[in-house]
Amino acid sequence: MITKSQVKYIQSLGQKKFRDEEAVFIAEGPKIINELLGALPAALIVLYATSNWAEEHAALLKNIPLSKLNEVKETELERLSFLPSPNQVLGLFQKPPPLPSQHFTANISLMLDGIQDPGNMGTIIRIADWFGIDRVICSTDCADAFAPKTVQSSMGSIVRVPLLYTDLLQFVKENTGLKLYAASLNGKKINEMEKLKEGVIVIGNESKGIRKELLDLCTERVTIPGSGRAESLNAAVATGILLSHLVPLPGSLS
Amino acid sequence: MITKSQVKYIQSLGQKKFRDEEAVFIAEGPKIINELLGALPAALIVLYATSNWAEEHAALLKNIPLSKLNEVKETELERLSFLPSPNQVLGLFQKPPPLPSQHFTANISLMLDGIQDPGNMGTIIRIADWFGIDRVICSTDCADAFAPKTVQSSMGSIVRVPLLYTDLLQFVKENTGLKLYAASLNGKKINEMEKLKEGVIVIGNESKGIRKELLDLCTERVTIPGSGRAESLNAAVATGILLSHLVPLPGSLS
Repeated sequence: MITKSQVKYIQSLGQKKFRDEEAVFIAEGPKIINELLGALPAALIVLYATSNWAEEHAALLKNIPLSKLNEVKETELERLSFLPSPNQVLGLFQKPPPLPSQHFTANISLMLDGIQDPGNMGTIIRIADWFGIDRVICSTDCADAFAPKTVQSSMGSIVRVPLLYTDLLQFVKENTGLKLYAASLNGKKINEMEKLKEGVIVIGNESKGIRKELLDLCTERVTIPGSGRAESLNAAVATGILLSHLVPLPGSLS
Repeated sequence: MITKSQVKYIQSLGQKKFRDEEAVFIAEGPKIINELLGALPAALIVLYATSNWAEEHAALLKNIPLSKLNEVKETELERLSFLPSPNQVLGLFQKPPPLPSQHFTANISLMLDGIQDPGNMGTIIRIADWFGIDRVICSTDCADAFAPKTVQSSMGSIVRVPLLYTDLLQFVKENTGLKLYAASLNGKKINEMEKLKEGVIVIGNESKGIRKELLDLCTERVTIPGSGRAESLNAAVATGILLSHLVPLPGSLS
């Protein structure tokens, strides 16, 4: 059962303003809900699930208080869903707290300058998780990491990768001595580079790249060599390629 | 000016069946139209453009017969568009002819087994273009490469990368001696491999991977090592990473 005010509340969470105020985000579909309940059961606020899904996932739900489980009909789920085709279960979760912008310790991080597309944003967070990246530092004009589409395309990685939204120029100035590697079309070829020991890999906006003021603060420009035919690569694909070449495998850092 | 029957015809091209019958595809927006008119002017059937766009792109349009240019109002473009926000210009183009399924010459190709998402499909074609891949061999259940969303996310690469839709099992059996490298979660680590001299890199479906019958025909499984946190990578991202490690740079093949 679901009330009108619940529907209204959940729909309001489609807007960043309300997500920020409430510190809540939405995740949908069996795959991502499985991931989140496994990784972060305490963050669950409420789950709206079909009775079929709830029966099939009794083991997963064992440690979830009954008061947090709301069985709904598929037609009710349709009214809540942000997906083109609603998918058995939708959950509200508490947003993890943002990272502090100081006390930045050396390791390998990712910095995103104006990534606009929520799908790219989520895919990049999933990549950061795959390569064990420490944290993702986002400019304030990046797509919101907790938008429904971003959560979806992160495939659950959103709760495992520490995130910070901040003024990048100020961040770089305050955290002196950072080595910044700028993804660029005319830099050092990544296949001729050693793996990084520490540093920040900087990815720019999908069409404009890294803004000049930030690029000017970067230590080095790095490039994915290609055949020279396509003009560019998708921002998430470029991030994946850069990290796969530059980030040491876990355990290989000493 | 645009007639009702033109609107109806263009809308019908949203369906694969009609695109196949007509051997026509749609591209939208200044960036991709620029690319296509530059790469493939002869393939243009008709262009619907706002007068603003046409004026600004007089140089590009110089070699286009006037009969192929149709100036429309923005409101008219909205009725034609497949984009969430219509964007100045839409063109109909002839589809390039499919590759023959025989006479497969050795080089590095990409094989896609059941890529479902049109966005992934287009992004993968763009990656193949970036790395100078010879051809992309797609299972018949892959998303249509000429769907509007795929054309869009390929960013124009769709006309530069030769494509073939075919029965992959039959293709492999008919073209004996192919070396097939299967993207997999438990194979040889790509960072421990030499660049390939020839072969086919095989990418599977977004959630199910490569189907067993095809996987059984593969020469070797290859894996992108990671931190062990995220369960998988997006199919297009994985393709980019694999190609960046396994495909020799142009000119370095002897």
